[in-house]
Amino acid sequence: MENEKHINLEKLLNVIVVVSAKDGRRFRGKLTQYDDYMNLVLEEVEELSKEAPAKHKLIMIKGGNVSSISV
Amino acid sequence: MENEKHINLEKLLNVIVVVSAKDGRRFRGKLTQYDDYMNLVLEEVEELSKEAPAKHKLIMIKGGNVSSISV
Amino acid sequence: MENEKHINLEKLLNVIVVVSAKDGRRFRGKLTQYDDYMNLVLEEVEELSKEAPAKHKLIMIKGGNVSSISV
Amino acid sequence: MENEKHINLEKLLNVIVVVSAKDGRRFRGKLTQYDDYMNLVLEEVEELSKEAPAKHKLIMIKGGNVSSISV
Amino acid sequence: MENEKHINLEKLLNVIVVVSAKDGRRFRGKLTQYDDYMNLVLEEVEELSKEAPAKHKLIMIKGGNVSSISV
Amino acid sequence: MENEKHINLEKLLNVIVVVSAKDGRRFRGKLTQYDDYMNLVLEEVEELSKEAPAKHKLIMIKGGNVSSISV
Amino acid sequence: MENEKHINLEKLLNVIVVVSAKDGRRFRGKLTQYDDYMNLVLEEVEELSKEAPAKHKLIMIKGGNVSSISV
Repeated sequence: MENEKHINLEKLLNVIVVVSAKDGRRFRGKLTQYDDYMNLVLEEVEELSKEAPAKHKLIMIKGGNVSSISV
Repeated sequence: MENEKHINLEKLLNVIVVVSAKDGRRFRGKLTQYDDYMNLVLEEVEELSKEAPAKHKLIMIKGGNVSSISV
Repeated sequence: MENEKHINLEKLLNVIVVVSAKDGRRFRGKLTQYDDYMNLVLEEVEELSKEAPAKHKLIMIKGGNVSSISV
Repeated sequence: MENEKHINLEKLLNVIVVVSAKDGRRFRGKLTQYDDYMNLVLEEVEELSKEAPAKHKLIMIKGGNVSSISV
Repeated sequence: MENEKHINLEKLLNVIVVVSAKDGRRFRGKLTQYDDYMNLVLEEVEELSKEAPAKHKLIMIKGGNVSSISV
Repeated sequence: MENEKHINLEKLLNVIVVVSAKDGRRFRGKLTQYDDYMNLVLEEVEELSKEAPAKHKLIMIKGGNVSSISV
Repeated sequence: MENEKHINLEKLLNVIVVVSAKDGRRFRGKLTQYDDYMNLVLEEVEELSKEAPAKHKLIMIKGGNVSSISV
């Protein structure tokens, strides 16, 4: 419960998460990788934006493009 | 009351806060984690934006997406 | 009156200031804390934006969201 | 499966990927180079934006302009 | 006339300047302080934006919000 | 074909390239200089934006304003 | 003709240049100073934006506000 240098995303690994991106897109998929810049790799991904529904085997979302990760 | 290298959010830990995000969304929830980049973890979260009311068990809001935290 | 590494906000501590934020909101309140990133804590805060007048006991405004501080 | 300093794009080298850019453009091409800033080089590139379909022999996309890479 | 690590604003100290800010506001006032991030302090300030003319005793303009300083 | 600290633009030196800039402008010209921030110098430059066609003997495009470089 | 840590603006010193700024303004004037952040000082400056033609004795343009410099 203390202040940390980096928030620990480890307990979200292999969990289905929803990522909201700054470019307006939203993705639901399994978080399989992340790094110190909060670049994220999701697998078995569903893109939730209405205009352009799409599925991706794998997507790497740039940390600078991540707004939030929720479960 | 002195200038500090990092504002101390410790007294907001486990407190219900409202977070305004740069992407226009607002969240009310319990602040359970934060780090030096002001990445925040809220739990038992209510999204206050009118268009898309939603509840999240947990949300990690990217520091770069945080505009303000109020109580 | 010399160039300084960081502008000294110390004389604004405990002074009522108006903070203009990049997200379009404006706040009037007592400056009670700040840090090197110009993250600010205001207390007894009045939000001056017309659409959504509001009062906050305390607000932490992210440095990256601060446009100006005036008295 | 651990937290890493940099997400490893090596397994995407020489793979056909789709890059979504912050400026709204989308590109499909073979990833032939990348660096620590996620600057990317694609070859045999098709620009997928409808308004201005175009082909490029090679494009270097600035890391700061990359939103996501998907396969 | 050589390349310098930081442009020297010293000769503008105590001079009436016009500051154009990224948020669209323009200020005319006496430059009384600045730092390495180009955070500026103006005193006896007139806000030149038409919609909301205003006077400020003192304003601190965030370096990241400064577009230009002219005399 | 390995990950590099900086993508090597050397083979584009003295080549005619098209630079897409974040401010919406596009330039075609000979790349004669670049640096680690991807600041670029083009010579014998044609500005491809329709509204304001223009020619420049030389243009320095700020790295932060570069979206992509294509050939 | 080699990659450099910083593009050398020295040969543009005391030359009449046109600076395009991110805030949409364009300036023509003599480049008399610059620094590592590409903060620029122009003297005898004409502002080329149509809506608000203006002359400035001297303008300091923040590096982060510079899109391009052309001759």
